Amino acid sequence: MIYTSESIEKAVEAFSSLPSIGRKTAQRLTYFMLRQNEDFIKKFSSAIESLMTNVKLCPVCYNYTEIEPCPICASHKRDRTIICVVEEPNDVLAIEKTGEFFGLYHVLHGVLNPLDGITPNELKIKELLSRMADVNEVILALNPSIEGEVTTQYIAKLLKPLEIKTPRIASGVPIGSSLEFTDEATLTRALESRINVAV
Amino acid sequence: MIYTSESIEKAVEAFSSLPSIGRKTAQRLTYFMLRQNEDFIKKFSSAIESLMTNVKLCPVCYNYTEIEPCPICASHKRDRTIICVVEEPNDVLAIEKTGEFFGLYHVLHGVLNPLDGITPNELKIKELLSRMADVNEVILALNPSIEGEVTTQYIAKLLKPLEIKTPRIASGVPIGSSLEFTDEATLTRALESRINVAV
Repeated sequence: MIYTSESIEKAVEAFSSLPSIGRKTAQRLTYFMLRQNEDFIKKFSSAIESLMTNVKLCPVCYNYTEIEPCPICASHKRDRTIICVVEEPNDVLAIEKTGEFFGLYHVLHGVLNPLDGITPNELKIKELLSRMADVNEVILALNPSIEGEVTTQYIAKLLKPLEIKTPRIASGVPIGSSLEFTDEATLTRALESRINVAV
Repeated sequence: MIYTSESIEKAVEAFSSLPSIGRKTAQRLTYFMLRQNEDFIKKFSSAIESLMTNVKLCPVCYNYTEIEPCPICASHKRDRTIICVVEEPNDVLAIEKTGEFFGLYHVLHGVLNPLDGITPNELKIKELLSRMADVNEVILALNPSIEGEVTTQYIAKLLKPLEIKTPRIASGVPIGSSLEFTDEATLTRALESRINVAV
């Protein structure tokens, strides 16, 4: 016998089922929990449960929200003529953190991957097309993977007849990184996408 | 605004309040949770809550348990003449995993630290002394820190008049490590504790 309590074993298993948490960290978290008071544990578990009860998808952009439409779609300060298309809700968070984008978003909830059975019908692509009335630019901000690439091409082609601009975000050497540690594919893209130095 | 939902913000905060989980990991875990079904979330939060409702301290060894006394103290297969003293309940787990110790345990719930106000009264030392009737060896398996050292000395002194053996676990170069990367204090201890090579 390793654990002296079934509840401890179950809690370790629960923590282990989360991504990037191994068995050792799960144990540490469980024993940490055991040292906390009742209030802490109650607050923790109700915070997790309220995700399930309160959070739904915005019927416009399909980002997570508690109100319909979501605060970004409802905001009068956002530019409604430009939509940034992302794969997942956490990508919205990443772009919001830059503080540099003031348009709306559209979350696809995945990318095309025929081998895994992800066809356009599994993604929020139809829903994106239905939003094009007042839009003149759709920024494609998908991850620079093969699937992201294919999805980017697919959406750009769909929007071409509507005469909407469909730029993709740039790929290249990350700021603060060095050429020495940049892989060939990234460096190739950075060379291809070279831009004039403003002098 | 960064998060589009207060529940998401609260869940990120809840995960961030756990040790070794930074804000970025907390976000990842929260978005992972949002992608799971209701069952997964319910199972997760009830596993955490049952720690609070089901787990208590064993009235004999002060390890965490659901039954009184704990399975180790209740087991007839364990050697009741030898007690291994540890700082925290997770140390019991670490020793049980070796599969090499068949005695009982005693969890102090800390080590002496006068500066932080941890005196013998804050630890389960009185409770340890009350268990000495049939015991002839107390293994002191505290962490090799200054406080662990002081507590080891303190307990060894207390038990001396009872003529109970009080060995401490060995400190030295960890198996699989190399001398080159072992700090001076550890290497000094390894030299002092040198033992004959059986030939």
